[in-house]
Amino acid sequence: MTETSRRIAMIGLGSMGMGMARALLAAGHSVGGYDVTPAATATLATAGGHAAASPGAAAKGADIVVVVVVNAAQTETVLFGDNGLVPMLVAGSVVISCATMAPDAAKALAARCAEHGILYLDAPMSGGAVRAGTGELTFMASGTPEAFAAARPALDAMAGKVYELGDAAGIGASFKMVNQLLAGVHIAAACEAITFASKMGLDIAKVYEVITASAGNSWMFENRVPHILEGDYSPRSAVNIFTKDLGIVSDIGRAETFPLPIAASALQMFLMTAAAGMGRDDDASPARLIAQITGVNLPAAKAQ
Amino acid sequence: MTETSRRIAMIGLGSMGMGMARALLAAGHSVGGYDVTPAATATLATAGGHAAASPGAAAKGADIVVVVVVNAAQTETVLFGDNGLVPMLVAGSVVISCATMAPDAAKALAARCAEHGILYLDAPMSGGAVRAGTGELTFMASGTPEAFAAARPALDAMAGKVYELGDAAGIGASFKMVNQLLAGVHIAAACEAITFASKMGLDIAKVYEVITASAGNSWMFENRVPHILEGDYSPRSAVNIFTKDLGIVSDIGRAETFPLPIAASALQMFLMTAAAGMGRDDDASPARLIAQITGVNLPAAKAQ
Repeated sequence: MTETSRRIAMIGLGSMGMGMARALLAAGHSVGGYDVTPAATATLATAGGHAAASPGAAAKGADIVVVVVVNAAQTETVLFGDNGLVPMLVAGSVVISCATMAPDAAKALAARCAEHGILYLDAPMSGGAVRAGTGELTFMASGTPEAFAAARPALDAMAGKVYELGDAAGIGASFKMVNQLLAGVHIAAACEAITFASKMGLDIAKVYEVITASAGNSWMFENRVPHILEGDYSPRSAVNIFTKDLGIVSDIGRAETFPLPIAASALQMFLMTAAAGMGRDDDASPARLIAQITGVNLPAAKAQ
Repeated sequence: MTETSRRIAMIGLGSMGMGMARALLAAGHSVGGYDVTPAATATLATAGGHAAASPGAAAKGADIVVVVVVNAAQTETVLFGDNGLVPMLVAGSVVISCATMAPDAAKALAARCAEHGILYLDAPMSGGAVRAGTGELTFMASGTPEAFAAARPALDAMAGKVYELGDAAGIGASFKMVNQLLAGVHIAAACEAITFASKMGLDIAKVYEVITASAGNSWMFENRVPHILEGDYSPRSAVNIFTKDLGIVSDIGRAETFPLPIAASALQMFLMTAAAGMGRDDDASPARLIAQITGVNLPAAKAQ
């Protein structure tokens, strides 16, 4: 399949956004971008894109905008704040919103975009920076057929898999919430289990080998426990991401009168870890906190 | 590899024990067996084994005994209770103990066997009845080299994989505890997440498809959620297994002053489910309890 080269704006150029920008460039698109950190914006220019001074400047002339910031508040700011991008877009352009946020927040942003004649694709993603750079992310997407159609050239370049989950914003966000509930619980459980194993005197490298071949395995256990075994708490994904995402899960539970005791325990574990000063460290850091509290041995943490 | 046919006793002929007996028979061994339920014992005879009237009667003349009962207390009874098997064994015979139990209980049973000159392999297992029948179970085993050597003909017939985890009883049990902590938390989290998804109005079959391809996946989510989607709560493994196993985990945590907040939440969820009358139902039943409490829709439970 050949695609006509498009002008695409990328807002947010951290490891994920920069990877996605590279995938778009590799597919032959023209990419303008902006990040609040000037050095990140400059990196885009060296990669063959165009550095812009604001979200609005990046979006000028683009008909697809990809927003890869941390949360709903940042997304709102880049869309509608000072030098925001929505006023710079022509009607029929599409915003692909990738931040994890509450379903109601996604619905509200889509409605405000619609008032400006702008399409909105609720498109949270799964997959790390490596898969971002190779255009193999998974998107949990929902939106109108028109939004999907307008977003297609960018999705084709960025995604290994696009789940089309419904015709309105909020559904993609809801799927992502379910994923984050499980992911957060599984990381917390992995941290609890591996320190418990150490407390019982077990060889935790052997525990990793046995569990990853057994019914106790999870995607997160398999992916995160090596960070603990290597004592490497440099943030591939940070504790603060899970205080945020499990916080949103908790908010929904309270708003809907839906008890979530397992997710609540995991949220408390991440909050304790952040409170102990590790909020910006890797999300396997609850293991370090438990080890500190209980005095069990884990491989020494490397200097970051 | 050819093996000389051995006389092996199988104590406990539920779906797991009977599957293991079939695997032993298929490998050419002579198998005598006993179960507290006479009908289960009779099934062994129809499969080509020898039905016995007590653990001791089953063990007479055997040099390998495999004990597949529910817990430490039942294991103790079949080994040392009325018509128990240990007094019937000749010195140098081996007991392969497969029940999930506390590490200290495994150590104590091994010590009592040693007083009678009987070897003891601490060998909890992972894998369901299907893999039991095809001789493809995974064993998390520890014991003396002599115990491993004596157990080898039976392990060769029953196991796809034997992890040799240490030279003393209790280590295998500890590994199994770590596995059960994770497995129990992952089932509880799966039940919480899938009902939360239903509450948010999502198509839970689609949630299953998306999550099993995403970072929120676990072995248990993938295996148990289909029970919920099919409304099939016939017990492949029962809620009461996890009140027991997470109970042991909790006991160890208190004995060792080791907090286990995530496992504690999962234990409470299984206890609530058992208290609501579903203790003997499939361990995916916490989903039914949550649905009942919160009024969310799940596929209707089939009559059992």
